[in-house]
Amino acid sequence: MHYPKPIRELIAALKALPGVGPKTAERYAFHLLGWSEAQIQELAKRLITVRTALSSCSHCGCLLDQPECLFCDRESDLLCVVASAKDVFSIEATGLHRGLYHVLGGLLSPLDGRGPAHLAIGTLKARLKTLRVTEVILALDSTVEGDATALFLKEELAAPQRRVSRLAHGLPLGSPLEYIDGGTLARAFSGRG
Amino acid sequence: MHYPKPIRELIAALKALPGVGPKTAERYAFHLLGWSEAQIQELAKRLITVRTALSSCSHCGCLLDQPECLFCDRESDLLCVVASAKDVFSIEATGLHRGLYHVLGGLLSPLDGRGPAHLAIGTLKARLKTLRVTEVILALDSTVEGDATALFLKEELAAPQRRVSRLAHGLPLGSPLEYIDGGTLARAFSGRG
Repeated sequence: MHYPKPIRELIAALKALPGVGPKTAERYAFHLLGWSEAQIQELAKRLITVRTALSSCSHCGCLLDQPECLFCDRESDLLCVVASAKDVFSIEATGLHRGLYHVLGGLLSPLDGRGPAHLAIGTLKARLKTLRVTEVILALDSTVEGDATALFLKEELAAPQRRVSRLAHGLPLGSPLEYIDGGTLARAFSGRG
Repeated sequence: MHYPKPIRELIAALKALPGVGPKTAERYAFHLLGWSEAQIQELAKRLITVRTALSSCSHCGCLLDQPECLFCDRESDLLCVVASAKDVFSIEATGLHRGLYHVLGGLLSPLDGRGPAHLAIGTLKARLKTLRVTEVILALDSTVEGDATALFLKEELAAPQRRVSRLAHGLPLGSPLEYIDGGTLARAFSGRG
């Protein structure tokens, strides 16, 4: 026996969320059935508002909730390249970077058909021509896609007057050595200081 | 640095989904930002539709997408008691029960302040007075709350002409013995046949 059509449609829509499979989507859908009318309307309203109230800076790709970009105005010779606008908030929270940003909008992933043309690499190169940037910091995921993207960008952005650096690899804070995988341990070892 | 207000509000709304903490809600919110206008509108529409297109049977509590209940019309002397309307679909899918249902709308949980008055126990007792039911099958979670509810109902529904049974406990199919917890193994052992 199948679920009624409105639930099946809601489940299908919820499955588009990252990491949500059929079981989780079903659980969410039936939970949402128990919400009050007001709660559902509120969620629906916020879903729609979040897209209309926010925009992306046409230069750096950072999220904007006001007409002008907070980051592009900064006087800095450091530019940090990230995959998603969310990463900007995490890096800002560390307090260690008060420079410029550039959001790629994803990572290279040939298996998913995502090549350099799908990322904001053209605008990054154009920005680097006009900005006086002495260091480009590649703050990308420590995954196969992140590594591939970093290698690609390191070649693409190479210039005599500019350093292209990457985030350090090593032990995450608070992790016992026995739970660290071999690859991470090797990188932590060779990068010791 | 904080996320812009529309994202914070969306994150707060998404955190009300079951099992969704702040990190998952953030991930969903930023993923939703990347959805197309049409996709977002579709999700919002389906959220609202699911509540208006569906109702609950006033007798058994099962979900209805039409005026009349499919289950209450059945000629049967078996009645299966479940915690949520979702469980009805799982039991129907087994093909082993073609009888009546009764949805409690939750389980007893004194710690969360959920007592018998919060569940559809009154209507269950009223139905049992008019229906000719020879067996009530308690198909409840195998958790502390499920066990407490089953024990409570077993006493409440006791009657000379009526059996009150529970789902069997034992090994789930396909599970190696070495991963089975002691409690389950003991129940499987004592219930062997």
